[in-house]
This record gives sequence, C-alpha cells and structure tokens, in this order.
Amino acid sequence: MNELRRDPLTGQWVIISEERSGRPQDFLVKRSVRPSRQCPFCEGHEEETPSEVFSTRSEHSPHNTPGWQIRVVPNKYPALLPTFDHEDEGAFLLPQPGCTAEDLYGATAGSGIHEVIIESPKHLVRSTDLNAKQLSNVLRMYRNRLQNIRKNKHIRSGIIFKNAGPEAGATMEHIHSQLIGLPIVAPLLTAELDAITKYRGKYDRCLLCDLISAEKQTAKRVITTTDRYIAFCPYASRQPYETWILPHVHQGDFDSVSDESCDELANVLLCTLQSVDALLNKPAYNYMILTAPFDTASISHYHWRIVIIPRTTIQAGFEFGTLCGINPIAPERAAHDLRNYQQSVSTTDDDCELVD
Amino acid sequence: MNELRRDPLTGQWVIISEERSGRPQDFLVKRSVRPSRQCPFCEGHEEETPSEVFSTRSEHSPHNTPGWQIRVVPNKYPALLPTFDHEDEGAFLLPQPGCTAEDLYGATAGSGIHEVIIESPKHLVRSTDLNAKQLSNVLRMYRNRLQNIRKNKHIRSGIIFKNAGPEAGATMEHIHSQLIGLPIVAPLLTAELDAITKYRGKYDRCLLCDLISAEKQTAKRVITTTDRYIAFCPYASRQPYETWILPHVHQGDFDSVSDESCDELANVLLCTLQSVDALLNKPAYNYMILTAPFDTASISHYHWRIVIIPRTTIQAGFEFGTLCGINPIAPERAAHDLRNYQQSVSTTDDDCELVD
Repeated sequence: MNELRRDPLTGQWVIISEERSGRPQDFLVKRSVRPSRQCPFCEGHEEETPSEVFSTRSEHSPHNTPGWQIRVVPNKYPALLPTFDHEDEGAFLLPQPGCTAEDLYGATAGSGIHEVIIESPKHLVRSTDLNAKQLSNVLRMYRNRLQNIRKNKHIRSGIIFKNAGPEAGATMEHIHSQLIGLPIVAPLLTAELDAITKYRGKYDRCLLCDLISAEKQTAKRVITTTDRYIAFCPYASRQPYETWILPHVHQGDFDSVSDESCDELANVLLCTLQSVDALLNKPAYNYMILTAPFDTASISHYHWRIVIIPRTTIQAGFEFGTLCGINPIAPERAAHDLRNYQQSVSTTDDDCELVD
Repeated sequence: MNELRRDPLTGQWVIISEERSGRPQDFLVKRSVRPSRQCPFCEGHEEETPSEVFSTRSEHSPHNTPGWQIRVVPNKYPALLPTFDHEDEGAFLLPQPGCTAEDLYGATAGSGIHEVIIESPKHLVRSTDLNAKQLSNVLRMYRNRLQNIRKNKHIRSGIIFKNAGPEAGATMEHIHSQLIGLPIVAPLLTAELDAITKYRGKYDRCLLCDLISAEKQTAKRVITTTDRYIAFCPYASRQPYETWILPHVHQGDFDSVSDESCDELANVLLCTLQSVDALLNKPAYNYMILTAPFDTASISHYHWRIVIIPRTTIQAGFEFGTLCGINPIAPERAAHDLRNYQQSVSTTDDDCELVD
C-alpha cells in the first residue's frame, strides 16, 4: 500500500509505504550495557542523584535513603533550569527588517522544570517489568507532578515522556520517565489546539471525540477498548505501530484522572506494551502523555492522550527536510498484529476487552 | 547556556541546553558492515538495481553496464510509486462530524517519484571521499533531476536528501543521495512559505535574505563565506552542528543554479563536511536541499538552501511529544568549532574564505 495521509490535528503528512519494509540492510547493530551495580537510580545509590523532590516510601524512612517505591528527582542534566527571575515574554510578533539575527528569530529564557520519575527501586528496565498496580502508581505520580508544576505561573505547558532503550534516546537503562514543564505552549500542542478550536468553532464538537467514534465504527485500527479507554493505531501513524490511548469521555487534562481510572489505564497501557514486546521482541520505545496547556480555556477544548512509539525506524533526511513521515507498516496491519499478540497475552490477563 | 529559541520560518522552538552535553551513557554501540563486494551500487553490479533513468558515462557505453560516473536509478523500495492514474486532490477542507475516520483525516494516492543518485562507481561512503569536481557533478545531477521531475504536472514539490551512515537512516553504505517528488507541498515548505509570505507582505523583503544579512553582521555563527555562498549554524539550530548553506542572492529554486555556481557550492559543501568529519570523527549525517515548490508564485518568494545535520543526538519522547528540539551544543559554539577545523583543512585547500 502506498498512500499519503494527512493528520487533521497537525496538518502534517505521512507516506504509508509498505514496499519499504523489505529493504536490505548493510548495517548490523550490537549494544553493550553498563553493569547495573553502577546505576545511580538503584535503591541504595540515592546520594548519586540530586535530592528528591517527592517520593512514595515507607513511613518514617528519611528522604534520599532506601525504602521508596517511586522517587522523583530533578534531572541532573536539565534541558531547562528552574530559574524564574525573568519577565514573561509576550507573543512573538513578526520580526522587522534591519534587526539583529537574534531578534529576527525570537528567544525566551530557558526556564522550566525537568524532573526524573524513577519508577522502581529495583533495576528494572521496561514498563512490562512492572505489574498493573505498580504501573497505576506511576500514572498517579505523573498526575500528581503535573498538578504540582501547574501551580508555577511561569509554566504554560507540561509533558510526561518515557525514553526506553538507547534507540529511543535513553541514556540510562533503569526504568524511569521524565516531566518537562515549559514556559511556552509546545508547538505540537499549539498546532493541535488550532485544529481543534477551528473544528469546535464550526461544529461545536471535539475533533478527537469524533475521531474516537469514527475509529470505533470501522474498528480496523482498534487494538483494545475498555469502559473508559480506547487504544488504536491512528490512520496517519507517522511510525510503525504508533498507538494512541484516549479516554472515551471528553477530558482535557491528565491531571484530573481519578485513581480508579489510573488503574484501568494502567491495564490498557500494560496490555498494549506487552503486545509490543511480544510482537517486536522488546524494542526501544517512547511514550508521551499529551495534555492541555495550563490555561483554563485550553483545558475544555483539548482531549488528552498517551502516544506510544516503538522505535523500529530512524528519522532520515526526507523527514527532516519535509516534516513528512515515511511509515512502512500501515496502521491497519499494525493494529491487526498487535491485537493478535494481545490475545495470547490476555489468556493470563483478562482485563482488556478485545475488538473483533 | 539554557535558552528557548524560536524559528521564524516554522514557528517551532528549540531548547539550547549545553548542560545536557555532559550526560553519562549506559549504552555503547558497535556496528558491523556488510562486505562491499556484495554491494548492488558498485560498478559491475548494474543488473542488481532497477534500470537506470539517467547516467553520466563514457560515450558509446550502453546503459546499465560499467563505464559510468554518476548513475540515477528508481528506488527499488520506493516511498511513492510513479502511478499517476488518479485525479489531483483539491485543498483539504475542515472534516465534518459523522464522516468516516478516513474522511476525518485526509488522504491522497501515494504517487510520486523516488530516485537514487549513485554518486560514484567505486565503493566510496562519504561525500568527503569525493573531490570538489566530482561533488560539483553530483550537484549538477541534483539540479538536472529536479528540472526533470518539475515537468510532471502531478508533482508539486521535490526534495534532494542524503542519508550517510545507519544512524542517519541509511540502509546502504555506498555513496548515494535520493530525490523524492511529492504530489503535495511538503509540510515544512508550507510552514516556511507561510512565514516568508507574511514577512514579504508586510515589508516587501525576503526573510531569508534579511537573515543572511543579520548573520553576516554578527558573524559569530558564520563558518564560511564565498562570493556566492554563506555557511552558518542557524540561531535556532535544532541539532548540534546543524549548518545551512545559502546563496547570498535571492534565488527560489535550486534548478536554476549555474554550472559555475555548482563548482563554488561544491567547494563550500566539501569544506564544511571536511570540518564536520575532522571535528566529530566522521559521524553519520544527513543533508537536504530545500527548494521552492514547483508553482511559479512560490519560486519568487522562496530562497533555497542546503541543510546539513550531523547525527550526534537521537530524537526522543520530548521531541515527538512537543515538536520542540533539545540541542546540547549552542550554534555559536558549533560554528566556532567548525571554523577552527576548517582552518586546518584549508591549509591544503584555499577555496573557502574564512570569517574571523
């Protein structure tokens, strides 16, 4: 199948090109991993990270000592620094001829929040090494940290993301996720909110709610549905096996997810990642939680989601030079394959209701 | 330095975060390469590729036999297929509630052109393995192929790109580039043309011409200038050592570059890539030629450029989830480092005039 598909949220395109999946490879990769006993994220090595900002730990155990289940620390190599001593910038206007190169662009102080969420005291490496209860606790921690950074008036949007494996951009093997709070609304959110607002302005409906209905109706890209959630491979998937998990009901921000809903979401996320592991032999992967910017108007418009990207391809010159993806696995096939593997997984775990 | 910088062309942001360049690494990578005698791009293996569509070769030597210098063949695993039996799609309108998932998105047949430009009959692997004359011939071939695909009324934009090394998305080691002709205007071009058109509408000037003037004035991000070209690291570089090469004079499409200008451009490109090789120990890299879409109005507005991206970092969850880059090497430092290495290179090759 060769088709160009357009994402209605971002206006970006992807080439679905299954011909390319059979390409020969000149290159083979081998990786070696640092011994885990040197790992600064393991229990007993608390002094090797910056001092924790939050943890779930046994009563009376002091901060920065063993006895924790989930530990949140500032990133030791932060992308943004928590120095909020500047004035907020206004909107960026059209630059003027004759101004400096710096003014032709635009810049704002790199202030923000960058936290690492260490998901286990043990040297586990993948989300599928956790059970559903542990993963639910991780999701609750994401929610709590988002609730916390929202209080900072300099922070306009936040993102939770996981890089698992070196091909996914991880430098540390020990199971962890990250939170970045930005002094801007992220460009992807801006683009999506533009499309969502336009659609709502015309029809008074949520584009993502309508997308969920349409995906349920055709079912061919759906992996799982539960009472509250749907997991599917989006029609314009930019990468093979890209999967979105969304709540059926319209909900803008991940902060307002209940504990019970976290339990159900953990099951859906775990089932999906187990299928990815089984189908693709434990690939490197990213997942991200996309949630509304922190201003009140956006929250009612946006519809949060988790995006999972197994890393099976490499962004190359074409993608950089066009912002158009090339995806050699059609999402219809990806969803079919993931469903098949989910069936074998779910013989031991019947929390996910399968489609077709 | 920690700073958020905005690209005036795309509206996208990058975090310049030098703190991150000192991160420890859990992972080490080793690669093995297939023996070159099995290479289908080498002279004598012409029957292993699709039949050539163009070549520069010694007189009287038949197509698809040895005796060539540069050979252009259709990609055996094309991202887009040359089947132009469909009607052209119109502009994409806002989707309607109640329509199918496919209609909520948008799609067009995956028709287009995908060619491979094999740059040498020998098993060379990097652009720096070519001399300036050979590289000039490659640039002329790019120009000629762009001139050729422009004739196809279904093709609305084209991009030349090179993936060198597996981390840059290459599957073949033998020196080659690719041309893709798209039935749409690529999203990056669309975003850039929007910004360029807005700036021109207000000031009747080219945003990129003004950017070049401003960069020349401050000089701190400039690597090289020659009579016709400037090479610099852009202020909002999304990746370490990202370098742009542009003509000083306003020129929308790469197709109209003269032979003499190709010679000069080959020198600038070669000097820059030699500095990259020396500084970064021959990293994987991409380069792309961004040129105006094929409609006449765009050509007068756009300003073509070459973008070089040495692959020293990996796109991770944050970048996917925000479309905001994280760059651990400020472009001021990148340009300084590349200039230093260019000076040692240019003792044996004085074609590039150095800045400061």
